Amino acid sequence: MTDRIYSFGGGVADGTSAMKDLLGGKGANLADMSSLGLPVPPGFTITSTVCMEYLDSVAVTRTGFLDKRDEDRGMMTGVTWGGAPAQVPSLPTGLMDEVRERLSRVEAIVGRTFGGAGQPLLVSVRSGARQSMPGMMDTILNLGLNDTTVQALAEESNNARFAWDSYRRFVTMYANVAMGLDRAHLDAIVTAAVRARAAQDETELTADDWRGVVPQLKARVAELSNRAFPDEPMDQLAGAIQAVFASWNTPRARFYRRDAGFPDDWGTACNVQAMVFGNTGDDSATGVAFTRDPKNGERVFFGEFLVNAQGEDVVAGTRTPQPVNREGSHAASTLPTLQEVMPAAYDELVSVYEKLELHYRDMQDIEFTIQDGRLWILQTRSGKRTGAAAVRIAVDMANEGLITRNEAVLRVDPEQLGHLLHPTIDPGAPRNVIAKGLPASPGAATGKVVFHAEDAVRLAEAGQDAILVREETSPEDIHGMAAARGVLTARGGQTSHAAVVARGMGVPCVAGCTEIVVHERERTFVTRVVGARPLTFHEGDVITLDGTTGEVLLGEVTATVPDVATSGMPDLLGWADAVARLGVRANADTPADAKVARGFGATGIGLCRTEHMFFDEERIAAVREMILAEDEDDRRKALEKLYPMQRQDFLGIFKAMDGLPVTIRLLDPPLHEFLPHEGHEVEDLARTMGVPLSHVRAQVEALRETNPMMGHRGCRLGLTFPSIYAMQVRAILDAAIDAQSEGIDVRPEIMIPLVSIEAELAHLRSLVQRTAADVFAHRGARVEFLIGTMIELPRACLVADQVARHADFFSFGTNDLTQTTFGFSRDDAGFLKAYQSPALAVLAQDPFVSIDVQGVGQLVEIGTTRGRSTKPDLKVGICGEHGGDPASIAFVHSVGLDYVSCSPFRVPVARLAAAQAALADVQVVSD
Amino acid sequence: MTDRIYSFGGGVADGTSAMKDLLGGKGANLADMSSLGLPVPPGFTITSTVCMEYLDSVAVTRTGFLDKRDEDRGMMTGVTWGGAPAQVPSLPTGLMDEVRERLSRVEAIVGRTFGGAGQPLLVSVRSGARQSMPGMMDTILNLGLNDTTVQALAEESNNARFAWDSYRRFVTMYANVAMGLDRAHLDAIVTAAVRARAAQDETELTADDWRGVVPQLKARVAELSNRAFPDEPMDQLAGAIQAVFASWNTPRARFYRRDAGFPDDWGTACNVQAMVFGNTGDDSATGVAFTRDPKNGERVFFGEFLVNAQGEDVVAGTRTPQPVNREGSHAASTLPTLQEVMPAAYDELVSVYEKLELHYRDMQDIEFTIQDGRLWILQTRSGKRTGAAAVRIAVDMANEGLITRNEAVLRVDPEQLGHLLHPTIDPGAPRNVIAKGLPASPGAATGKVVFHAEDAVRLAEAGQDAILVREETSPEDIHGMAAARGVLTARGGQTSHAAVVARGMGVPCVAGCTEIVVHERERTFVTRVVGARPLTFHEGDVITLDGTTGEVLLGEVTATVPDVATSGMPDLLGWADAVARLGVRANADTPADAKVARGFGATGIGLCRTEHMFFDEERIAAVREMILAEDEDDRRKALEKLYPMQRQDFLGIFKAMDGLPVTIRLLDPPLHEFLPHEGHEVEDLARTMGVPLSHVRAQVEALRETNPMMGHRGCRLGLTFPSIYAMQVRAILDAAIDAQSEGIDVRPEIMIPLVSIEAELAHLRSLVQRTAADVFAHRGARVEFLIGTMIELPRACLVADQVARHADFFSFGTNDLTQTTFGFSRDDAGFLKAYQSPALAVLAQDPFVSIDVQGVGQLVEIGTTRGRSTKPDLKVGICGEHGGDPASIAFVHSVGLDYVSCSPFRVPVARLAAAQAALADVQVVSD
Repeated sequence: MTDRIYSFGGGVADGTSAMKDLLGGKGANLADMSSLGLPVPPGFTITSTVCMEYLDSVAVTRTGFLDKRDEDRGMMTGVTWGGAPAQVPSLPTGLMDEVRERLSRVEAIVGRTFGGAGQPLLVSVRSGARQSMPGMMDTILNLGLNDTTVQALAEESNNARFAWDSYRRFVTMYANVAMGLDRAHLDAIVTAAVRARAAQDETELTADDWRGVVPQLKARVAELSNRAFPDEPMDQLAGAIQAVFASWNTPRARFYRRDAGFPDDWGTACNVQAMVFGNTGDDSATGVAFTRDPKNGERVFFGEFLVNAQGEDVVAGTRTPQPVNREGSHAASTLPTLQEVMPAAYDELVSVYEKLELHYRDMQDIEFTIQDGRLWILQTRSGKRTGAAAVRIAVDMANEGLITRNEAVLRVDPEQLGHLLHPTIDPGAPRNVIAKGLPASPGAATGKVVFHAEDAVRLAEAGQDAILVREETSPEDIHGMAAARGVLTARGGQTSHAAVVARGMGVPCVAGCTEIVVHERERTFVTRVVGARPLTFHEGDVITLDGTTGEVLLGEVTATVPDVATSGMPDLLGWADAVARLGVRANADTPADAKVARGFGATGIGLCRTEHMFFDEERIAAVREMILAEDEDDRRKALEKLYPMQRQDFLGIFKAMDGLPVTIRLLDPPLHEFLPHEGHEVEDLARTMGVPLSHVRAQVEALRETNPMMGHRGCRLGLTFPSIYAMQVRAILDAAIDAQSEGIDVRPEIMIPLVSIEAELAHLRSLVQRTAADVFAHRGARVEFLIGTMIELPRACLVADQVARHADFFSFGTNDLTQTTFGFSRDDAGFLKAYQSPALAVLAQDPFVSIDVQGVGQLVEIGTTRGRSTKPDLKVGICGEHGGDPASIAFVHSVGLDYVSCSPFRVPVARLAAAQAALADVQVVSD
Repeated sequence: MTDRIYSFGGGVADGTSAMKDLLGGKGANLADMSSLGLPVPPGFTITSTVCMEYLDSVAVTRTGFLDKRDEDRGMMTGVTWGGAPAQVPSLPTGLMDEVRERLSRVEAIVGRTFGGAGQPLLVSVRSGARQSMPGMMDTILNLGLNDTTVQALAEESNNARFAWDSYRRFVTMYANVAMGLDRAHLDAIVTAAVRARAAQDETELTADDWRGVVPQLKARVAELSNRAFPDEPMDQLAGAIQAVFASWNTPRARFYRRDAGFPDDWGTACNVQAMVFGNTGDDSATGVAFTRDPKNGERVFFGEFLVNAQGEDVVAGTRTPQPVNREGSHAASTLPTLQEVMPAAYDELVSVYEKLELHYRDMQDIEFTIQDGRLWILQTRSGKRTGAAAVRIAVDMANEGLITRNEAVLRVDPEQLGHLLHPTIDPGAPRNVIAKGLPASPGAATGKVVFHAEDAVRLAEAGQDAILVREETSPEDIHGMAAARGVLTARGGQTSHAAVVARGMGVPCVAGCTEIVVHERERTFVTRVVGARPLTFHEGDVITLDGTTGEVLLGEVTATVPDVATSGMPDLLGWADAVARLGVRANADTPADAKVARGFGATGIGLCRTEHMFFDEERIAAVREMILAEDEDDRRKALEKLYPMQRQDFLGIFKAMDGLPVTIRLLDPPLHEFLPHEGHEVEDLARTMGVPLSHVRAQVEALRETNPMMGHRGCRLGLTFPSIYAMQVRAILDAAIDAQSEGIDVRPEIMIPLVSIEAELAHLRSLVQRTAADVFAHRGARVEFLIGTMIELPRACLVADQVARHADFFSFGTNDLTQTTFGFSRDDAGFLKAYQSPALAVLAQDPFVSIDVQGVGQLVEIGTTRGRSTKPDLKVGICGEHGGDPASIAFVHSVGLDYVSCSPFRVPVARLAAAQAALADVQVVSD
């Protein structure tokens, strides 16, 4: 049998950093720091094994889902509704005796007595599982206070107000956290006291006021809970320990575990640690320090402190903190430094920081308290940092030899890397948020509001910055989106047209902002934020978008543009590419996009959408002519007009991607997307084309679809209007031969979209082949090319073995696959917000942002396995929006895909994520 | 080694009816009839083994798909486009010697000589595999004719024109079928001959004319094929045999086999049989007879014949056939009967029919020829019959002891049974078809055209029959559909609103009739049939719908209403129920529908759609109030108005289904379905409700969806507007308690629609439970009930193990599952017609009509297996439109589902299909 309790402090520890399973992350860390000889306040950890022993002492159902199954079972078997009250578990026999014994060691180290009337020992009690996990018990501070010890504390600190304030805080916290009472009942007493004193707020209350409040709080607790508030410190401690253990089974904790896949039998450890105080006089202090600059990553020791203060004073911001030294002071502060006022403590802190960074091999965020001149380290952890700092620190540490290059690659959150590629709003800048939508395309942008694509173009031509605001965007808005600095839409989700196109262009975008109502004709938008006065914005008003957070801000806000070249990113990505197994391609539709993608290190184009080329002003006429054609002859004539333009586009892309594969998807959207719908636009069209209005109207009507996402599009178009695909294939292969004759290494991959039935692909493969034969015969030259398909419908995954007979490659279109697997239209998924709310918690995250591994992922796996059962060397990639999401990249890596494809600006993010996925494999193997 | 050739004829046969694998169905049947001593023209069968030997004599790829893979392979490896010419296989050594030997036996029996100049033997050559299969070789008749034998035939028949006509037909047929030449090339010669003679058509050509044509045909054949037309009869025969064998591998045959799941290595047998002629004089004749009346099933021998005629003369209809006897003559014909003119042959025919029916134990369709007074039986097969006859014959034969009751159940095609439930257009009635759409709801209906639901109601109230014609129907049209005799729509598929609702009501419906254009405002529709003059129909014009064929007919057409009571159907379905394992429930939304369903033998309601109740005129106002509610309080107020109405509905349904389960689906459609969309309707609504127009407009706009099928509906509504579901649950359970207190045995099953995530169902199950607890507490009474879910999204199938934790039952909603699995919107699936065309043949059938076993079926199987892995006794049903389709029923039987649910009028069909599926199991076991 292992020990039930592990002590730490006084330069030694029973446990080690390797004992996370038993001691939890927090306990193992405290043991670790003690063993390093750091001045950690002493204490002990009760193991997670004890927690499970405690919970198992009654038959508690630990497998239920949100506690609902028990209710249901009761229901269905006719048991009385509401259920029987839970039985109370009990701590293992003799545990509290052991706790008392361990407390003695703590008392010896700090020279204080738990419950003592002289120098009282107060402790904190915290939960701590092997993985950080929300939903479990918060910290209880100052445990051990009662009517006796509060007196001793007041005398020792010479601060009665501090002692009584601590006491009333402890009672409230304990009643809430350990006894499960609603804080509101107790806060009401404090409010009454404030009112009785005619004070502004509780900071004006005196020691005597608090002395009067404490008995009232205790009386209320007794009344509400039918139990007296425990005055005996050992009783307080036993209650707190039980509360920590019981918190393992709160619905929130269980839901979180279920979602994260953590087993229910881990249990949580319980940490009991001596309190230290930075507010016992002028040789006491409290502060926070970072071993490197968390803002830019510079290698400089940096921190702030307050003399005679508690941690919460630092947080409250009522006093201005002093720098720990001059070097690390950002705003050249003239206040005295810690180095100046407490040189011995500062020197010890420096030696601690050096030891910690060397030990943990990462930038540390250190909380310290100096009590009566003595330094205590309360906590150390890897410090939070900006994206720029994360990259800088990882690269520097690798160059310093502190970590390996692979470790450096693992150190940077790919999403943080993404921030380096876009202008970022200055963290200190004031943010006047007028509405919030979805963070659809990252980066900050300021400009004048416009409501029509043409106006964005006009402003851009006049050298002005425009923010294009639309109800939702459509392909006709693309030129305006390209000209605008940022895009704001009222409708649509993370994979709506606006979001996808903006990300592709690297234009900041806030989409699905339901807090605004757009009146495009009136050229205004009005905010409708719950509880706020509506604001009306007119064309020309200046707003700022934060596409990284989804916020819309009033007026101009300062943003900084990071310097990628000096950021360390190129080094880091070089190291990443050396270990990644997944290739990273880009989704790019134009030669310009292709060049950007290549600049970001894309190894090919995974998705070139040919329809975006159709919306160009000079082309759309020909496209409409083709759609309105009365017969096949007329259709061919219109297609002949489009052919040279498409050929030119492809030539440009092939040149930009010399030596790299280019996957071109044949026409995908339903034809009605290319036609106008409003009455007057239809009239204009009929006039322009010289076609009777009735004919145009009839065609618009005939093409109208109830659910266009599942309508007449993709390969369904290719099969029913084969001349369209034939024209596109001709344009691709003619362009490829053109490029090849100029010495370009062309690698076209022709992709057939929306296949769900084997025969669809069989027919279209044959069409492509026949067209290719014609082109090659006509040109007297040939190029190597592949024919593949997008796998974006559940059925295609289920019959992938059949589909693979006719495919050289698969590319999973996970946007549409997510839509059809869930039956969620990405354009109508407003309810997804509610689904992600804590109240429902139906979904942990938006499945259009990060792949739904259980459902959509299962289909990706089925599709890949079955496809390769037919063709073992089938090339398989993913080209949905998930291709740029790190969690999705890790998943598709695990499934064994060959590449991901994402918007050009996500390529660096994906390269890093691909490397991390590969390194995770190595770690699993070496574990 | 088995024999390569099996002879038959002369009262004996080498083979037996059990040798279908070797001899094919046709060959085995001929052997069978010979062994029975029937006068079958003698011949022999070359086995399917020889076929495979022949095909394997060169390395032919037999596994390719539509021959495309070879092309592809050539393409990708750079092999010359077009491929090498196929190698020619050869017949096994010595085979033709054996054939010659077998021919001698035939010659002996008929007293003729193959290629003989005296009485020449002519033969027919036919393919015949073990299963009937389209795409293989047609029959070649009169093989053995050449310039010598034609002369002999002319002399023998004393009819030179007949002989030369037969000869030229043989040459054309042989060139086309055996030598693969396009008929058009040869028909051109005949056309030229007609023109040269200035004749009306080829019937005017004489023996001499044909004598002149034959050499021209042969010359053209030689020119086109580079081979002389074979004059030597044995060469003709060798060529025909090879053509039969080669036809096993035509693309069409291979596609069919792939689709039907027949292996490629079966091969086809080849039947060679002596020709007999009914046109050699007045003691010759040809005819067709049925052992029972194929129209009503009456047990009476029935048939027609022509003296001195060939089979094709009967088909041509230029002469009026004579009855074989008086009893079986439908139209009291006064022409002499066979019994009168050839009593001996007639008596022999009677003895043959008795023998055949006893042997085959089914009504037989017999083709016979009398040559020079001698009766020959050319073919016998189970006779085609009407639905009424099928039921009558099966029930009679079981009662006669000729077949078992289980056999009777297997004898009737469930679809045919369906015809008995609806008025059927008289087969003899003239049909003036003006347009064709989808056969959406069976039965015939005649009435005056109306274009608005109100007009249908008005006409019905005036005692007149209306046909409701709409672009498409919506829930607002339901009262009009119920009042109309039939429904015709221009848009929508087999599972469109119109189709589903009409089938549920038993109202004939032609849907998706793209050959008409409906102008609802102008109250006209115009036909647009390719190649036909457009016809305009106005309100009040009379048309007839044939919902069984999808045809729209001009004016009134006679239809007969079958008498179900005397049809034998009740007996047959009783026998069916005794063996079926699947239960058959009905989809019914009202007490009236429930009563109809119970009348048809439904064992419960599998789907009661609560939203249909919402469209009632007095309710829709409350529904709209609920939708337009500004807050939860207003919403509850509106819901309180709906509650008593819903409660009343449910009470009626529970009463109708006393003792049987009733599955009630909570609200499913998106809320905007209940709001008007046209500008003036929105204005009306705002006025009626006393709500500002801008508010109504804003709500209509906010609820608008791009893809409503995948939008804010089903459980997504239940989770975001829990008060709606709570009201419905309250109405269900209060009604159940009301019914129970009246002594009714209530079995409510509450069904949550559109679940794709476990937590959705967990939350809503809990909501139902809490509501139930409230109701039970309030009423002081309880009822037993179940809570389950519709499985209609791919993800629900994939995570069915999780979903099942919160479900007492699953009901597969295969309409939506088909939509999402394929990504086909049932409202926009116009391209499905093209997919089923022979040109594309992408789909063998409409997946909304018969379940797609490979894709959707796979998900049904996954969902069932995984659901039961969590709950072994999970009740599983299917309630999509597939629940009434026999093939789908057979599939879900094989998966182990518990029940199907379909529209009331399909219940008898489903009961029979369920029994057949169960009997198929037994047959497999006993095989």
